[in-house]
Amino acid sequence: MPVLIVGSIALDDIKTQTEKRLDLLGGSASYASVAASFFDQVNLVGIVGSDFPKAHLDLFRQRRIDLTGLQIVDGKTFRWGGEYEADMNKRQTLYTELNVFETFTPSLPPAYRATSIILLGNIGPNLQNHVLDQVEHREFVVADTMDLWITTTRPELLKLLNRIDLLVLNDGEARQLTEDDNLVRAARKILDLGPKYVAVKKGEHGCLLISRDQFFSCGAFPIEKLFDPTGAGDTFAGGLAGYLASLRRPVIEFSDLKRAIVHGSMLASFCVESFSLDRLKTLTPTELDERYRFFRAMSHFDN
Amino acid sequence: MPVLIVGSIALDDIKTQTEKRLDLLGGSASYASVAASFFDQVNLVGIVGSDFPKAHLDLFRQRRIDLTGLQIVDGKTFRWGGEYEADMNKRQTLYTELNVFETFTPSLPPAYRATSIILLGNIGPNLQNHVLDQVEHREFVVADTMDLWITTTRPELLKLLNRIDLLVLNDGEARQLTEDDNLVRAARKILDLGPKYVAVKKGEHGCLLISRDQFFSCGAFPIEKLFDPTGAGDTFAGGLAGYLASLRRPVIEFSDLKRAIVHGSMLASFCVESFSLDRLKTLTPTELDERYRFFRAMSHFDN
Repeated sequence: MPVLIVGSIALDDIKTQTEKRLDLLGGSASYASVAASFFDQVNLVGIVGSDFPKAHLDLFRQRRIDLTGLQIVDGKTFRWGGEYEADMNKRQTLYTELNVFETFTPSLPPAYRATSIILLGNIGPNLQNHVLDQVEHREFVVADTMDLWITTTRPELLKLLNRIDLLVLNDGEARQLTEDDNLVRAARKILDLGPKYVAVKKGEHGCLLISRDQFFSCGAFPIEKLFDPTGAGDTFAGGLAGYLASLRRPVIEFSDLKRAIVHGSMLASFCVESFSLDRLKTLTPTELDERYRFFRAMSHFDN
Repeated sequence: MPVLIVGSIALDDIKTQTEKRLDLLGGSASYASVAASFFDQVNLVGIVGSDFPKAHLDLFRQRRIDLTGLQIVDGKTFRWGGEYEADMNKRQTLYTELNVFETFTPSLPPAYRATSIILLGNIGPNLQNHVLDQVEHREFVVADTMDLWITTTRPELLKLLNRIDLLVLNDGEARQLTEDDNLVRAARKILDLGPKYVAVKKGEHGCLLISRDQFFSCGAFPIEKLFDPTGAGDTFAGGLAGYLASLRRPVIEFSDLKRAIVHGSMLASFCVESFSLDRLKTLTPTELDERYRFFRAMSHFDN
C-alpha cells in the first residue's frame, strides 16, 4: 500500500555564501515524496498554483508519486526565500508568500483513506489534524513539526501528538516544546504527550530514537561540505516513512524504526550534496546500497 | 603487558548547584588508571605529595595498579577546585595549585620502558614528550590533550602529534587546534599533523573516530541527570587504553579501536553518575556487560 504524504509544495529562492538559485522545487511534501519514492509508491496530498512548472509534475509522476490528491488551482504556488550564513546551520527566511497555500484544505481522495503509513509533513498542525480526520484506516502515523507551530499553534499541536505514533523534530524544537535542555529528558516528556516514539534530529550529530523502553542513536554521515541543507529534514522524514511502508508490516517494531531512521539519514545525507532535489534526481540504488554499508560500518562495532 | 599511564594525580574540591565536596581523588591519571584497571594491569607514572591519603594509594593497589612509577615527595599534592553551572557542561576553575606537580619530571622505571599500550593522560605536552623519550619499545600510543596546551604550548603539542597513534580531544579543542568549524574536516586536518587516528569527544553527542579511510560514530549513553562530569574524559581515555592492552594484539586494527571507543564511553557513562571515582569503585563486571549490551542495541541496526 502506498505511503500517504501531505505537506507543502513550494518554489524556493535560495542564497548561499557562494551561489543564488531561483524557482527551485521545494516544500516539505516535495522532498518527502521523492525521498519516499525510493522505497515505495507515494500518494501525495498538496496544493500548487497554475504557475507550477510541468517539469516538476513530470518528476513526481516519473517517481511513482500519485497526484490524484494534488490540487492545482488558479493563482501562484507557495514561495519561500532563504539565505544561509557562512555557518550553513544558520539561515534567514527572506520571505514567505503563502499564495494558494493560504486557503489549502487537504482533501483525501477516497482511495487514500485507508492506508498503512502516513507522513504528515511539516505544515500547520490544524491541517495535519484535518488529514487524520479523513483517514478511515491507518497503521502508523509519522508527523514532522517545526518551531513556528510550537510557538503559534501549540494547542493544535498537542491535540495532534495524541493521534500519532512517531514525532520527528530537531533538537532545538524538542527543547522548545518541553522547556528542558537535556535532550533525553525532553524526548521522554514528549512521549508523555502522546506519541509512542520520538525521533530527535541533531544535524551533524545524527539522530536519536526513543520509546518508553528502548533507545537508538544513529550517527550522521560525515559531511565535509554542506552544499544546501534545505529540505534535509523533510527528506529524512520521507525516506523514513517510505522505508516503513516498503516493509508491509502489520505492526511496526522498534527494530524496523531503527532501520527506517538509518534510511532517512541516508537520503538526507544525499539531499544536502546539491541544491533542491537535484541530487535525489540522480541517486541510484547502487549508491543507496553503498551508503547503507557505510552507515553499517560506522555504527556497528561487534561483528 | 600492563598499560602505561602517565598524568596528573590531584585532590579536587568540586561544587555543583546542589552539593560541595572537598579533597576528592582527582587528576587525569587517577581516573584513567582506575578505568583501565577494569581491563588490564596498569603501570602508573605520576607524582603526589606527602599529604596524599593512604586510602587513595590503597585503592590504586587493590585495582592492579602498579605504583613503582609513582613519586611520593615532600610537599603538597596538586589541587584543583571547580564549580559547575546549572548547565553541567559548563564549569569554572576556582583555583589550580600545582604544588609538587610544578617540578614533576616523569621518570619511567626500567620495567616500564618496554610496553605495548601507552596512555599519555592530559598533562603538558612537554611532559608527554619526555615520557616517550624514555620508552624503548611500544606498540600504540594514545594521547589526551586540552585547550590550555593548544593555546600555550602549541609547538610541543605539534611535536607530540608526530609521535603518537591516536589523539583524543573534545569537539571544541579539535576546532581550536585546526581553526575549522566542521568537525569532520577538523579531524582530517589533525590526521595531517601526524596521528593515524583521531577520537573527537562530543559529550552528550558521543564520539567520532577517524582514520585516513575509516569512520566510526559512537553514540553517548542517554544520561538524564549528570551528577559530576569531572574526569569523564580521562575515564574515557583510560577505559579505551586498558581495553586495547587487554587485546594483546601485535597490531591494532580499526575494528579494535571501535570497540575500545565503546568501552571508554561505557566507563565514562558510569563515571558521571557520582562524584570523583565513587561510581567506578563499586562498578561490577556484570554492570559492564549490561552496559555493553545496551551500547550494542543502541548502535546496531542490522542484525
